[in-house]
Amino acid sequence: MPLWTDIAAEIADFRRRIRDLPVIPDATPDSLRAELEPRYRFDRPIDLETLTADVMRLLRTQQVHVTHPRYFGLFNPQVREAGIVADTLAALYNAQLAVWSHSPAANEMERLALRALAVRIGYDPDGMLAQFTSGGAEANLCSALCALASRFPTWAEEGVAALGTRPAIYVSTESHHSFVKLAKMTGLGTASVREAPVRADLKLDPSALEQFIEADRAAGWSPLLIVGTAGTTAAGIVDPLPELAAVAKRTGAWFHADAAWGGGALMSDRLRPHLEGIALADSVTWDAHKWLSVPMGGGMFFCRHPEAVKRAFTTVHTYMPVPTGDTVDNFQTTPQWSRRTTGLKVFMSLAELGVEGYGKLVDHQADMGALLRTKLVDAGWTLVADTPLPVVCFTHPDIEAGRVSIDEVIRRVYANRQTWISPVLLGSDRRRALRACITSYETEPRDLDALIEELTNGLRPKD
Amino acid sequence: MPLWTDIAAEIADFRRRIRDLPVIPDATPDSLRAELEPRYRFDRPIDLETLTADVMRLLRTQQVHVTHPRYFGLFNPQVREAGIVADTLAALYNAQLAVWSHSPAANEMERLALRALAVRIGYDPDGMLAQFTSGGAEANLCSALCALASRFPTWAEEGVAALGTRPAIYVSTESHHSFVKLAKMTGLGTASVREAPVRADLKLDPSALEQFIEADRAAGWSPLLIVGTAGTTAAGIVDPLPELAAVAKRTGAWFHADAAWGGGALMSDRLRPHLEGIALADSVTWDAHKWLSVPMGGGMFFCRHPEAVKRAFTTVHTYMPVPTGDTVDNFQTTPQWSRRTTGLKVFMSLAELGVEGYGKLVDHQADMGALLRTKLVDAGWTLVADTPLPVVCFTHPDIEAGRVSIDEVIRRVYANRQTWISPVLLGSDRRRALRACITSYETEPRDLDALIEELTNGLRPKD
Repeated sequence: MPLWTDIAAEIADFRRRIRDLPVIPDATPDSLRAELEPRYRFDRPIDLETLTADVMRLLRTQQVHVTHPRYFGLFNPQVREAGIVADTLAALYNAQLAVWSHSPAANEMERLALRALAVRIGYDPDGMLAQFTSGGAEANLCSALCALASRFPTWAEEGVAALGTRPAIYVSTESHHSFVKLAKMTGLGTASVREAPVRADLKLDPSALEQFIEADRAAGWSPLLIVGTAGTTAAGIVDPLPELAAVAKRTGAWFHADAAWGGGALMSDRLRPHLEGIALADSVTWDAHKWLSVPMGGGMFFCRHPEAVKRAFTTVHTYMPVPTGDTVDNFQTTPQWSRRTTGLKVFMSLAELGVEGYGKLVDHQADMGALLRTKLVDAGWTLVADTPLPVVCFTHPDIEAGRVSIDEVIRRVYANRQTWISPVLLGSDRRRALRACITSYETEPRDLDALIEELTNGLRPKD
Repeated sequence: MPLWTDIAAEIADFRRRIRDLPVIPDATPDSLRAELEPRYRFDRPIDLETLTADVMRLLRTQQVHVTHPRYFGLFNPQVREAGIVADTLAALYNAQLAVWSHSPAANEMERLALRALAVRIGYDPDGMLAQFTSGGAEANLCSALCALASRFPTWAEEGVAALGTRPAIYVSTESHHSFVKLAKMTGLGTASVREAPVRADLKLDPSALEQFIEADRAAGWSPLLIVGTAGTTAAGIVDPLPELAAVAKRTGAWFHADAAWGGGALMSDRLRPHLEGIALADSVTWDAHKWLSVPMGGGMFFCRHPEAVKRAFTTVHTYMPVPTGDTVDNFQTTPQWSRRTTGLKVFMSLAELGVEGYGKLVDHQADMGALLRTKLVDAGWTLVADTPLPVVCFTHPDIEAGRVSIDEVIRRVYANRQTWISPVLLGSDRRRALRACITSYETEPRDLDALIEELTNGLRPKD
């Protein structure tokens, strides 16, 4: 089996030596196309071993390595080997998870993983319905659809035009913009996304939100959904979930917690209190492919109202197998129809580590975030947001004084290809800052030192 | 590397010996849970090699094997090894395809595959926009969203309530019910799905459809979308695409071709003429994880109107990297945000086989379908639908005479666990029949003989 021997060697070597690779590639669209187009015309067969070697080389050399310990990026993790194994097995057996009866084992392994994670949220695993999704965008979409299905008995058949009111989705300026996308997709329109300003600490202000909702109500809106973010994309901020749950209760809105990334903190007994109140949410988004360190494509949606989920997604059909006893047929409870076992990697990672082992990984990343804050301050940088989670937003007196711009710093950092960070806009006044997130459980203090060295170089005025 | 040595051995052994395995498992929810729950409490770590061995055993023994040459099922294929390799590499490097700049190589490989497949549709690869989706349901969803974005300039902001008309989606009774699901999700409501009756040959009747649309228009509907199915789920029927395109043009509707499975026929020069007219469609759904024999999770959406796609999905954002030259940032052109490289398996399968090699696989499956028809007739069965594609619907004089029911036949076939077929309802009068589809490129005449033997046993009255 030379093919899989080669692949096994690459898996071991790439994972062992990734720290020595550049984080950032040097490809341009033109250079890559000039290389690939003549070779891949699909007009003749290519031996699978030759092809595999070429694809491995291309992926090793021509991507931002999100699995690198010095990728301080957008919640894309280093992955556990258990997740790679699981994705291989998912492809090999090609389990079909539309219905339970086609894939009993894969369905039950997914179910066990989802129940264990529901317990970490604080949900009763027997009183909720959870599903894997393509990602957080689809899970957030589910929240709006379940809210519509729950609040409006005529929605499924007559659509949003016949609701007799104009439903509103309340987010903060720091919420993920997938809510803007889903507002289009659900036919509510982007005008229905009501963006509430955040306080100086970048958190939604519950009493200001409640006033906003009441003013909106007078203008013809009715509150459908309140979104609390547990770990914002820009700065890792956790909205005040218990207070938002109370506002949702008083205003009659569905309360959704978007913990796409921050959900990972629930695995740590030390960090979990920072997400207090998440169990009060009607539904929760949690992406395993972010802080649970599994490969891309492990979104999750948890809902305390199984009947709303079923109303949102159930369709009649004539050709699908009939349901099996006390089981869930996934095509009736998610936007998807056919699906591979995307949750197998979550099951295998959880089984390999155990809950406690996962907690240690998460704690380590939070520790590295805290250490990065200390090192930045020691090196003369200024922190601009505060969170117990490992996202660090910062600036520098030279930037604030206009001696160098954030774009210049980032351009110089990227040019060295040794680390990846990003610019962000923070808060209601759109303050610009630099952002570094600990996305690899293998990031060590020496990687933080390398980042600070790159940043310091980035500050130097042009020659 | 004993872990990957074990996995490589399982890959080779499972693929070589699958014909000797039962197609259907014997698990029940209770039996599986009693086995799994005590072992997987996630309260202690489990060695990855031990865990992997257990997961391989579970998946080998406890699922309907859709990759089996005697699985005559629901468009879930045997997979090419290139697809398994690709899914392993996608997990290893964890390429993030939200934006081009993060994964230049993976983005460009996907682009090449999509352009080559667009050419098979008959689209100009420079004048279209194509994207990978989670599956056909998401691709079909894209068709409705692009139609809305294209027809109604106010839709994105104001939603469907402000359109000033009631948009209708025209499907046939044989179309896939993902259109019912997406009618809910888009806020159009299931009442907007206007189901036109089919002719005796199970095809949409263009002139009857046009009359239906005109009658609907008088009742306040306006035609948004006409769906032509190129390979229906139940019987593999291809709707008259050129005539439906003409109806769409005359009525002002968007014309969508749902070739989720049938698109595979485009790879064969011999079968491709049966999908004549597909290039006239405004958009096309085509699932690589059906007849292109890649693992689950390779849906595709092709659209001749790039601007409509962008209008449907573009969102403002503050934290995503900026676009790179003449490239597509996937999160701006699909319902998803983050995404793994689900298209790598399509690229690698296409590169390994070449277009001609793919055509041979597809032709072989069509040949096996034709042979199954002959063998069924020779064995006394009655064919009840006609298609050049390898889906076969049939019944038997004993069934028609009431001596045995379709459910009894299927129950007896399943009890032997040697093959999987399904019951279907066909046509506007919902006639029941049995259905067998050639879903593996490795199905041979001996597998057809085995199916017929099982069916003949299934006819025998109870002891």
